[in-house]
Amino acid sequence: MRTEPLQDGQVGRSVSRVESAAKVSGAAEYIYNLEIPHMLHAGIARSQVPHGRIAAIHTEAARRMPGVETVVTGSGIASLIPDPYYGPAFHDQPILALDVVRFVGEAVAVVLAATHETAREAKDLVAVDYEPLPAVFDESEAAKPEAPLVHEQLRPSAAFEDLRHLSGRSGTNISMEYRLRRGDVGAAFEESDQLFEDTFRTQQVMHAPLEPHVAVAELDGSGRLIVHSSTQSPSFVRAELARLLGWPEHRVRVRTAFVGGGFGAKLYMKVEALAAACALLTGRPVRIALSMDEQFYVITRHATTFAIKTGVTSDGRIRARECSIWWNGGAYADIGPRVTQKAGFVASGPYDIANVSIDSRAVYTNLPPAGAMRGFGVPQVNWAYESQMDIMAHRLGIDPVEFRRRNALKSGQPQATGTIPSDANTETVLDEVARLIRWSEPRDRGGEGQPRRRGRGIAIGIKAVVTPTTSAAAVKLDADGSVTVFAGTVDIGQGSDTVLAQIAGEILGTAAESIRIAHPDTDLTPYDMGTLGSRSTFHMGSAVATATCDVRAQLLAVAARTLNAPVGDLDLSDGHVIVRQGEQKVSVEEIMARAFGRGAGTLVGSGSFTPSYEPPDADTGQSRDIAVFWMVGGAGVDLEVDTETGKIRVRRLAVVGDVGRAINPELVRAQLSGAALQQLGMTLSEELRFEDGQLTNPGLAFYKVPIFPDLPDEIEVGFVESPHPKGPFGAKGVGETGTLAVAAAVGNALFDAVGVRVRELPLTPERVLRALKAAAGSALE
Amino acid sequence: MRTEPLQDGQVGRSVSRVESAAKVSGAAEYIYNLEIPHMLHAGIARSQVPHGRIAAIHTEAARRMPGVETVVTGSGIASLIPDPYYGPAFHDQPILALDVVRFVGEAVAVVLAATHETAREAKDLVAVDYEPLPAVFDESEAAKPEAPLVHEQLRPSAAFEDLRHLSGRSGTNISMEYRLRRGDVGAAFEESDQLFEDTFRTQQVMHAPLEPHVAVAELDGSGRLIVHSSTQSPSFVRAELARLLGWPEHRVRVRTAFVGGGFGAKLYMKVEALAAACALLTGRPVRIALSMDEQFYVITRHATTFAIKTGVTSDGRIRARECSIWWNGGAYADIGPRVTQKAGFVASGPYDIANVSIDSRAVYTNLPPAGAMRGFGVPQVNWAYESQMDIMAHRLGIDPVEFRRRNALKSGQPQATGTIPSDANTETVLDEVARLIRWSEPRDRGGEGQPRRRGRGIAIGIKAVVTPTTSAAAVKLDADGSVTVFAGTVDIGQGSDTVLAQIAGEILGTAAESIRIAHPDTDLTPYDMGTLGSRSTFHMGSAVATATCDVRAQLLAVAARTLNAPVGDLDLSDGHVIVRQGEQKVSVEEIMARAFGRGAGTLVGSGSFTPSYEPPDADTGQSRDIAVFWMVGGAGVDLEVDTETGKIRVRRLAVVGDVGRAINPELVRAQLSGAALQQLGMTLSEELRFEDGQLTNPGLAFYKVPIFPDLPDEIEVGFVESPHPKGPFGAKGVGETGTLAVAAAVGNALFDAVGVRVRELPLTPERVLRALKAAAGSALE
Repeated sequence: MRTEPLQDGQVGRSVSRVESAAKVSGAAEYIYNLEIPHMLHAGIARSQVPHGRIAAIHTEAARRMPGVETVVTGSGIASLIPDPYYGPAFHDQPILALDVVRFVGEAVAVVLAATHETAREAKDLVAVDYEPLPAVFDESEAAKPEAPLVHEQLRPSAAFEDLRHLSGRSGTNISMEYRLRRGDVGAAFEESDQLFEDTFRTQQVMHAPLEPHVAVAELDGSGRLIVHSSTQSPSFVRAELARLLGWPEHRVRVRTAFVGGGFGAKLYMKVEALAAACALLTGRPVRIALSMDEQFYVITRHATTFAIKTGVTSDGRIRARECSIWWNGGAYADIGPRVTQKAGFVASGPYDIANVSIDSRAVYTNLPPAGAMRGFGVPQVNWAYESQMDIMAHRLGIDPVEFRRRNALKSGQPQATGTIPSDANTETVLDEVARLIRWSEPRDRGGEGQPRRRGRGIAIGIKAVVTPTTSAAAVKLDADGSVTVFAGTVDIGQGSDTVLAQIAGEILGTAAESIRIAHPDTDLTPYDMGTLGSRSTFHMGSAVATATCDVRAQLLAVAARTLNAPVGDLDLSDGHVIVRQGEQKVSVEEIMARAFGRGAGTLVGSGSFTPSYEPPDADTGQSRDIAVFWMVGGAGVDLEVDTETGKIRVRRLAVVGDVGRAINPELVRAQLSGAALQQLGMTLSEELRFEDGQLTNPGLAFYKVPIFPDLPDEIEVGFVESPHPKGPFGAKGVGETGTLAVAAAVGNALFDAVGVRVRELPLTPERVLRALKAAAGSALE
Repeated sequence: MRTEPLQDGQVGRSVSRVESAAKVSGAAEYIYNLEIPHMLHAGIARSQVPHGRIAAIHTEAARRMPGVETVVTGSGIASLIPDPYYGPAFHDQPILALDVVRFVGEAVAVVLAATHETAREAKDLVAVDYEPLPAVFDESEAAKPEAPLVHEQLRPSAAFEDLRHLSGRSGTNISMEYRLRRGDVGAAFEESDQLFEDTFRTQQVMHAPLEPHVAVAELDGSGRLIVHSSTQSPSFVRAELARLLGWPEHRVRVRTAFVGGGFGAKLYMKVEALAAACALLTGRPVRIALSMDEQFYVITRHATTFAIKTGVTSDGRIRARECSIWWNGGAYADIGPRVTQKAGFVASGPYDIANVSIDSRAVYTNLPPAGAMRGFGVPQVNWAYESQMDIMAHRLGIDPVEFRRRNALKSGQPQATGTIPSDANTETVLDEVARLIRWSEPRDRGGEGQPRRRGRGIAIGIKAVVTPTTSAAAVKLDADGSVTVFAGTVDIGQGSDTVLAQIAGEILGTAAESIRIAHPDTDLTPYDMGTLGSRSTFHMGSAVATATCDVRAQLLAVAARTLNAPVGDLDLSDGHVIVRQGEQKVSVEEIMARAFGRGAGTLVGSGSFTPSYEPPDADTGQSRDIAVFWMVGGAGVDLEVDTETGKIRVRRLAVVGDVGRAINPELVRAQLSGAALQQLGMTLSEELRFEDGQLTNPGLAFYKVPIFPDLPDEIEVGFVESPHPKGPFGAKGVGETGTLAVAAAVGNALFDAVGVRVRELPLTPERVLRALKAAAGSALE
């Protein structure tokens, strides 16, 4: 892939989002706003017990309510789909609970009614009798042999084929156990000067996109199913619906529009199968639109327990690291086992460590399912290893930045898997974070005896992009010179439409603003794995670049014929074909008219991108080619702690990413700062709180995402540009980079400010205050 | 283009229509059934005078009706679109009448209301005051210098550029005057043994598609206009809407679905501009759906007057022919001038005539506009020249088939324009018609004195396909092996989806039934000139074939890599890639999975077709390359005339077409017989009847299209297959072929039965009876 911008400056320009006018005017299309004549609305009755056998479902009262069309239960679904279990890793989740419920909030019945209001009112009239079953909530507890079983057996999906050997055994709650072995950890621990053993925990959080999950399913009568969905992965939903129905894929169409935030919540199957089944059962279009509160029961980020043991020499070189991680997957695996693997193999951090042992376990519990969320597990493992790096630096008496520098992966050094992340600029990111947070400047720690104390912290992290995956794209050039890009990437607010328009515009010598990006639609847009894992700019960007080069070549070939000039003499600029040797400059519209007739003709180019990959060795987890690119993210925090309330206020947040090349610098900044602020929420306040499996804080009134007063006083965004040889114009993905290191940077700054180490997130005032009091207490002892 | 089917027998197989299940179950998508939430419905108030100046429009009463949103008049349209005149040849037709109305039924005001019923009721409350202007209805009268003027000035469109030199002068009603001059007609008449001079007339008829015109226009709020329309030419509608609005084309999207019959009525702009303007004025989606009766005021087939003079030698060789034709274009030109040209240059018939003079005039009158209708003017001119051929044969004492054979164009002989129609199998068609109608078998004329008399007639015709035009297509192959064709051809009932699927299926070794054809949508499907002129199988078929070959090559290249075999050894069959030398047979799905990952990847191919063309000489109308293919159609009729009532009953109808190669024999039969029966309606009963410009028979209760009792007792369809070197698998278009010669064959059979020659259509019982009486009267004289 070409890494230098060609001309006309589309790449590297902070083009305003191409959809901004539509969004600002409220006119942008969202599936949530879709109305289809005669559609039915759904109200979902949900389990009120964390684990239980369904004895009876009483639907009569709901059915009697005027406006209610019908009530669908699991048995109704099973009459249509005998094996109604879905999931990207395991086929473990029923479309509606069948015989058993496994978490509070699991969908048990659906009321279908003429209006949304009726459906939601009537759902409360559905009563369910349960025979309670023993439940388990903690990931460590659930992993024990004696724990109550959440699932009797495991059914890996085809997509899980490469991990099948790691799949857990039936009879435990461990759905997958990922292992990585590198060097000889035991021997290296023996040879280390100091050993550090710590356990860190993170809490369950959720994505909180402002547009909740929505799907509208309808039949087109020729036997095809059309699902309009707020999904991030239309291709996956299509394949999974086809599998459930036993249909060929092409009988299913999945389309989306703009999506009001995803962050991973809208990947894989969510409400689509339920909407589709209800549409097939009733013969009517069916809309399932969740409330904000219901999102808490759909998908979350894993809570984790991470026991980390590290051996170091007294001069600050890490000899060995042993990582043992338990991922609280909730009641259904979703993509959790993949999180367990992918975040697992970077659990030892962006460091050059010769001896590494990693055990990463996906565990079922009776909580809402956990899956993909921005960072894909790395923010959790980073919290642990970067907190411990700080602990060790302090204990060794080495400056934390210097300690990291001594161990940071350098060019040509292999990561734990054995792959050399040659594009990862670990040291540069570290230096840039230190610079932006003014690491070496003198600190104002707050006066002795003052209640408010200041401190600085730093952390860096690494993440491998999902590999291998495929993106394909097509580009259409019409007779009026207008260009349409057909790409399955969903613009979920990250600005992908704009970036893809810039890539196509650069190649065609056309302003990005003039290029139209079609909404993803499996009938129309070529395959894409999904809008996830920071892969869209790199993978779809490459596919779009190839497709655009294809259409460019076609256009120049046509121009060469009509202008009677060699192709090699032609170039494109500003919507014109230019003959380099002469004075000629002819508009694309005119070239098309000469070739195909006035107003006639269309050129279509296509391309796809599938990077190389070597699957990890089954026993050791080793691979020489585990990922096509690596994200390196760093965070620096300067904060103030009120020692009387425990409240943390971030005065300055620095976030730095290794971005390859910024196609659109403003969007890169927005991605980095947005990710960091989202991570700040998880760090300081966000937490799903449960009592006996009952969520006690559903809804944004109780679940505290950062609001304006919670934002840092200052945010500094830095990015390291070092063009990736395979990225479009050198770009790498950057959607998750900002999340990686924020939590540990805050925790480290907290320690720097007040000398206490908190090992569990979130760093709420209560928890900080308790830690301060505990430290004061132990100081008194 | 390859002319031999490749394999697997998709081409040449009578595949059932791919959409038949959807149509039979009533589920197929038609724009007429489209409901968009909050859309407004339109009721159109129409002119009640044939020519008049609008003094006042009274809309208050309509506005007061409950449910009425607003009433739009021409001045409202002009506030949005200052120059609201459209048309494919001239920009002469206002979206709503502005200062003047030019025919009874012209749209003057639109009531927009919440329901269709309210809109239609309220439209009758709109009252208009007119100052009457003198009107003219007959095409010969209108062409005279002293006739009242329908238009003060002429504004040719850009698409009319090539005919601009033929454009009429302002100050007359002749909008265009096409001339062809070949050889020396005057001298040849001098040298002829006999001269024949006749004048023939045809009446104004209409298309009567069962789905009336419908358009739904909406704004997507990002400033784009979306028009859902029952159009046959989405690309044209998009361009014309953009021109009217002064927008770039890509801000307009035109999409269609299945269309319930077109026959040319739904080409170019019809109700779309009005719907679009109303949507822009109100900010609401607007639906304009005409009633069956209103179709009579939208577009019709030209009435004609054709003065034909032919000089022959006594041994039956035609030396010279002079054709003078007046086309009654109605109040707006629509595509009439193009009909005047294209039907003009074949007005001397499928004969080898060295000296030809043709004058073909498009004339404005104060009747509903006339434009394209199946056959594009050729059925009218054929009625004249084939009737005269019969007159001459009888007068010369030569068998009519033999007389035609002596003069028929033979291989290598130029047609009147100078182009050699090398693909036209004139003699073979003639022979096949004679065979099917059992020309040489003894005739049962009905007993002397019996009221019912039998007779046989025959006729042949030729038509050039529209040239040059462009079609482009794209073909998408998904990971499950499913194939989608993106083509702008509209399936208007002719079966184009099926034929395109067969072409793609043949090339990909896949059953046509498994291939999906996307509905035309200017956002998604590549450019196509329009579904018209029997061009879709040839032009779009070629584009689809090229696009499919492209995707096939991509697939085989991928397969060659994954199978490690040379591309040359690979073939496709039955959804599998076959390695010819070995035993290997791998499904396309598996090839895609190996190349792109399980369930991943898409290949997109594209192609277009623009045939060669030499514009006719401005003075002589001569060209060596006027058309890329030629249709030759013949009809034979065996009929019975009730001499007491004048009623004709067709006992046997034979219709023969030169089809190149039948991609789908059943569909070819359906096209040929359907066209012949439609033409039988025009021949025997259909006629728009006017009194002072007032249509007296709007609606199918009064306008007599053939119904079951009117059908011939027997229909024989024959087709001549002689692969066209440029057609896809040798195919030629056949949608109009069946119309060409029916009327004259009936007229000739009538003469054969009862010895009277009727020179004007339709051959109603009344007209036949009058002719019989006149003949009896003159016999008495």
